[in-house]
Parts: sequence; structure tokens; C-alpha cells
Amino acid sequence: MASSSAVKADRLWQRHADMAKLGGTQKGGVNRQALSAEDAAARNLLASWAKARGFSIFTDAIGNLFVQRAGIDAHAAPVMSGSHMDSQPTGGRFDGMYGVLAAFEALEALDDAKIRTKRPVMAVAWTNEEGSRFQPGAMGSAVFAGHNKLDEMLAVKDWKGVVLKDALAETLKAAPATLRAGPPGFAVDSYVEAHIEQGPRLENEKKTIGVVTGIQGSRRYIVEISGEEAHAGTTPRAARKDAFAAATRIAAAMYEATTDADDTLRFTIGRVEVAPGSPNTVPGKALFTIDMRHPQNDVLDAHEQKLEDIVAARAAPCPATITRITNVAPVDFDLAVIDLVRAKADGLKLAHMDMPSGAGHDAMHIAKLCPAGMIFVPCERGISHNEAENATPSDLAAGAQVLVEVLEALANR
Amino acid sequence: MASSSAVKADRLWQRHADMAKLGGTQKGGVNRQALSAEDAAARNLLASWAKARGFSIFTDAIGNLFVQRAGIDAHAAPVMSGSHMDSQPTGGRFDGMYGVLAAFEALEALDDAKIRTKRPVMAVAWTNEEGSRFQPGAMGSAVFAGHNKLDEMLAVKDWKGVVLKDALAETLKAAPATLRAGPPGFAVDSYVEAHIEQGPRLENEKKTIGVVTGIQGSRRYIVEISGEEAHAGTTPRAARKDAFAAATRIAAAMYEATTDADDTLRFTIGRVEVAPGSPNTVPGKALFTIDMRHPQNDVLDAHEQKLEDIVAARAAPCPATITRITNVAPVDFDLAVIDLVRAKADGLKLAHMDMPSGAGHDAMHIAKLCPAGMIFVPCERGISHNEAENATPSDLAAGAQVLVEVLEALANR
Repeated sequence: MASSSAVKADRLWQRHADMAKLGGTQKGGVNRQALSAEDAAARNLLASWAKARGFSIFTDAIGNLFVQRAGIDAHAAPVMSGSHMDSQPTGGRFDGMYGVLAAFEALEALDDAKIRTKRPVMAVAWTNEEGSRFQPGAMGSAVFAGHNKLDEMLAVKDWKGVVLKDALAETLKAAPATLRAGPPGFAVDSYVEAHIEQGPRLENEKKTIGVVTGIQGSRRYIVEISGEEAHAGTTPRAARKDAFAAATRIAAAMYEATTDADDTLRFTIGRVEVAPGSPNTVPGKALFTIDMRHPQNDVLDAHEQKLEDIVAARAAPCPATITRITNVAPVDFDLAVIDLVRAKADGLKLAHMDMPSGAGHDAMHIAKLCPAGMIFVPCERGISHNEAENATPSDLAAGAQVLVEVLEALANR
Repeated sequence: MASSSAVKADRLWQRHADMAKLGGTQKGGVNRQALSAEDAAARNLLASWAKARGFSIFTDAIGNLFVQRAGIDAHAAPVMSGSHMDSQPTGGRFDGMYGVLAAFEALEALDDAKIRTKRPVMAVAWTNEEGSRFQPGAMGSAVFAGHNKLDEMLAVKDWKGVVLKDALAETLKAAPATLRAGPPGFAVDSYVEAHIEQGPRLENEKKTIGVVTGIQGSRRYIVEISGEEAHAGTTPRAARKDAFAAATRIAAAMYEATTDADDTLRFTIGRVEVAPGSPNTVPGKALFTIDMRHPQNDVLDAHEQKLEDIVAARAAPCPATITRITNVAPVDFDLAVIDLVRAKADGLKLAHMDMPSGAGHDAMHIAKLCPAGMIFVPCERGISHNEAENATPSDLAAGAQVLVEVLEALANR
């Protein structure tokens, strides 16, 4: 029996439904932010499934959760697959979770097909990929890969002032697992991450499998503007230092400066804070975040310069700063892994296409450690980071079929 | 002894200091929002001073607090003076509070000078002038004057969903006073409100007293924009419905459309909400408030039309609405009261100037009931609705001197 034949679409779909209850929202999405009670519940559920199968389970000092199916060679570095279980505040049921459940489905399919692999095959749920509560995102994989320092990440605070270290301790208390000693990170043979596309291309081009060639670079900034609170009725315009008026000038110029002809640059202002927030007081402070992405570093460099110039030119009379918070360079995936994904999709007679990833994923960090790749499946209308996020059971199963064949091949290389 | 000679600058200043402790902030301002525990504490403190003097105290169904010094003619309608004790979330020590304490100082000065007046003289603290917690502002005086309906105002909710009726009951439990039966409102002979200018003109022109001729009209709006949440990394610009990008286009056009040559129109966007507020999610919703003021109604009408046209033209592809929340017409004060204020300032050899009020005040509602006027004193750099708000003991006392002479004259007319 081929491993891909042992993939069960119903089982995989049901696992998504079970996970969607943890942090489930009225609109059918999920709010399961990193290191929340809902995140802990998801960890426990995954662990309970792994335990039932007899797979070994452990965690590390940043809370990454690993499920391992033993290989013939106990000392061989594992082939790894996975993604994340945390969500946006108003997130969907598939973003991240599909990659974890597809990896777990692959482990189960290998088990059901009674296939022994030379190397261990491991499913992983990385901590805090979304970065909506604790910044930066893709934190667990970044620490695992040595891109970010453990101590610095443990000291990060969320918007309410909760320290990540405390939230992690709370989570691991609620969802206990064997702790791997020492700092995160160990030898990995290769890594393949399955994910919904989170964009409209596969659906538009009627393809089931996206053979992901790489990930565009992404940078995040905070713009902070200081004004002076004043009475809305008495203060003449000429005497105002209106922080939101300045923010509007800056944002308008930035939207214009990032309007590229081929619509490849991604520019988003996602979080906006204006204080004190009283209708009849001129705002004394304004703050907004910028998320900017492009496959080429030089394009990002050029636009970063434009953003800095705009803040310098448009903020007056309010002092303003722009601060780069994260800078993740574009990533090219391993050619052998890309070829393997394409070949397995071909072999399963699934319509496929090569494509870069518009979103950042944990794979971008793990690609620095070992040969890596990704498999995309379609999501409805390309909508993601949205409670309306949707995908079909058969597309999810198709992705898992490609995944298990790729993992099997890598584990026997 | 003239009533104005009995005004004590030290006593008036100390009363401001005592009140500033109730909701006092680290930066030296106050956060004493309407119907909060701090508001109740201010009511109790004022009542304790009134009780010590033997003045009568009562409240009404919207929580306005009255302190009366008896007149010779017990049946004569009172001459009234006052303002409000609630503050902005990051407000100052003088906005509103000065008008209440100057009125109380006038009552004390009449007492100390042993002057009996024909009419009663009354100090009032109107409920919820700021409108930062419960909208609309100037609520207590508006209900008193019949401009707003009691039942509708009692049903108003704050941003957290607390119903005003409940907050009022809580406040009157913490700060009990005799309740005047029936709906708010009774016959008033005349009304004079003292207030800091909340603008820079008196200071710039080195005047101590502003003889206020009227109040500019003020309108408030909410603009609401619906977008579609989407992934910041994968969603092409052409496929986005970005609520904050639309808000920026709308706000930028509005700032431009309200830039008048003589800098008379006041246009403020004070509260801005963007949801879901995640740095890597395209905003699905944006909302902002507009506060717009001008002395002429036709100018406000013309600009309201411009704001509506901008929302209609600039929001696409996001549906958007603009809703007018309040509309307070410009007010002209009573010529006899204006003349009296000017004559008393002259008599006291205080430098004065005629001026309109840029801010709305409770006097705008009471002016519909009876002859009314206002007295302004300077505030530092014109800064108000700000914790840095400041004024001098001698200017505050000068205003109280003019006030008591005006009230005495009106009470003996």
C-alpha cells in the first residue's frame, strides 16, 4: 500500500473541525492567539492524538511542540514537517493548522500503510507564527534556527504588558510535555511545510497543488508621531500639532509611493492607535504599523528609503519616527525538494504550478538549516487572516498525499 | 464693602488645588469623566463647602447640582452661574471647574460682604459637559433647557456599554443630594458662565477678561468604513478592500477641504478605530469621529456637504457612511449681559476684549431660556483639553471679581 493511499480525507477534515472548536468564533473562524488558553488546548489535543498512536512527544524552551515517528536508524536526523497552531485575533481554521494536521496525517498514513522509514519523520507545531500578540512572528522557528535569540524572545511583551516567558510557562503548565534540555534547535535532515495558499492564484488557475519555490522578503515598521493635545473648538489650525493629521499625510504619501505597476509590492498599515481618542480633542499621539513585502531585497531597500523620506518630509510640525522592527530576507527553497514536490504531484495526477509564497512561513527560517520546501493548496477566494477562510476536504487531502510521499522519499534518501 | 473686594484669590486657588486631587493624573491634569467615582467625589466636596456656608443644595433628574444663596424675594427666579466638573480623559484642572468655583466664590464673596440681593444667586455644576464618555456633551444643560429629552439621555451608553441611567444612579448614591421632583428645568432670570478661554487670544493680546459675545456652532459626525480582512503578504493591492487605506483617502481630502484661508473653521478627527488591528492583516473596518465648528451656520452647511461628497467619492471599493451625531447652532449672547460684563471689567480696570467662544459651553443651551453671557480668563498658551492646562491665581480671581459684580447687578435688576 502506497503511503498516499493511506491518507484519509475524512479523518483530516474531522481533525480540522475538532481544532476549530478551540478558540472558535461566532463567524466560524478562530481566535487562538499564541500562548493563550486556546493555544494550550490545541497542544493538548494534538498530544492526545499522538499518544494514542504511540508517537513520542516533546517540547523545547520556546514551546515548539514535536511529534516523532521513529525511523529504522535511531541516530539519523529526522525529516520534519509542520507549521503552527496559533491564529490571528480574527483568523481562520486552516492557516497554520493545516500544515500541522497534514504532517500528523502523514505520520498516521505511514503508520497505517505499515511503512518503515530510514530516518524518523517528525511533525512540528512552531510557537507564535502569527506575531499578532507577541512580535516578531515565526518566533518558534526563528529561535530554533538561531535567527532570533531565546533570551530576547522570552522577554518580549504583548500589547497588554504580559511577558512571553510568563505566558509560555502558563501554557506549558496547562499543556505539559517532556522538555528537551538546552536551547532550541537540533539537526534536521530536511523540512517540508504544507499550507493553504492564502492568496487567489491556485483557485484562479484551477490548480490543486502549488509547488512553492521560495518566500518573498518581509519587513515590519512602526511609525510614531507626537503632536500636542488641544481643544478642538478653540485651537486655530495654524496653532495645532495634530498627530493624526500628520499620520494621514504620511500614510497617504506611503500608499502612493508603494503603488507599483505590476502590483507585486505588498504594503499594509494594519494597526493604528490614536490618543487620547476623544472626539473633541486634537490627537496628541498617533502610531501605526507597516508590513511591506517583495520577492527582491533591493526593491524593499528602495521602498524603505522612500518611507523614511516621507516621514521626514510630511510629519511637520509633529516630530515623528519610523522604526524597523523586523527584516526577513527573501528565501529560495532547495531545488531538490522543489523537484520532488513537483514530481510527486505529477505522479498523483494533481494539477500543479510553481509559485513563490506571498506570506512568510516558518519554512523561511528552517530553510537556513536544511533543504526545505513547501506545498500549497487552494483556499476559497484567496481569503485568509479572516474568519471566512475556507478550503475543501479533497484539496486538503491532496496536499497531504503529496506531502507524505515527499516525506517518505526524503526519509529514505 | 464691594462684592468684588470680598473675592479671595488664595481661597479660589486652593479650591482648584483641592478639586484637582480628585482624578488627578501624574502629569498634573485630571481624569474626572462624567458620572465616574471621581465626579461623585467632586460633587461631595462642593456640597461640603456649600453646607459649611449654609447654602441650600439640590440635584435634578439628570444630575445637575445646584447651590443656592437665598435672595430677599424668595419667589424671584434666580440669577445663575456655573459650568461643569467633569473632565476629558486627559484633561486639565481649570476647564469647567473654574466656572463652578468662580460661581461659588461669588456666593461666598456676597456672603462675606454681607450683601443681600433681591433674587437668589445660584451656582450650578452641569452634568457631563465634555461628552467624552457619554455623548452628546453639554448634556445636563441641554436637558435642563429642553434641547435634549431626559429619557433619551438616560438611555445613552458609554464606549463600554454602561447605561447613563445606571452610572447616574451610582453617582447619586455616592454623592447624595436632595432630588428636585419632576423633569429638569425651572425659571431662571439670567445666566453668566465663567470659563478659561481654551484658546490663545487673551494671552496673545495681553487681556485679562474676554467679554464673550456668542458661541460658534458645532457639529459632530462618525465616518464608518467597511473593508475586507485579508492577508497582508498574499493579497494583491487590486484585490484589497482596505478600510484604513480608504479612511486615509477620505481623511486627507477632508483636511484639505476644511483648510479655509482665514483659519476660522475648526475641523478635528479625534477618535480613530481600526479593526482587527493586527500588523499583518488588511483592516476590515475603520471608524473615525469628526468635530467641526464655525460661527456661521451656512458655512457649516456648505462644509457638511463637502464631507458627504468626499465620503461618497473616495471610499471605493469600501462601502462607507458619514452620520451626523450632533448639531448645535451658533449662539449670540444677550446684549445687556454682554454690556454689563464689559462695564464691570472696565470699572475694575481690567484689560478686556470682546470675542466669540471657540468652544461649546453649557451657556449655549441656557441662552435659549434666559439672557445669558460668559466671561473668559486667559489660560497658558491657549492649551486646554490637555493635562498641561494652566492659569494664574490672579487671572482667575479677576474673572471672579467681574462675575460677582455682574451677578449682583443682575440679581438686583
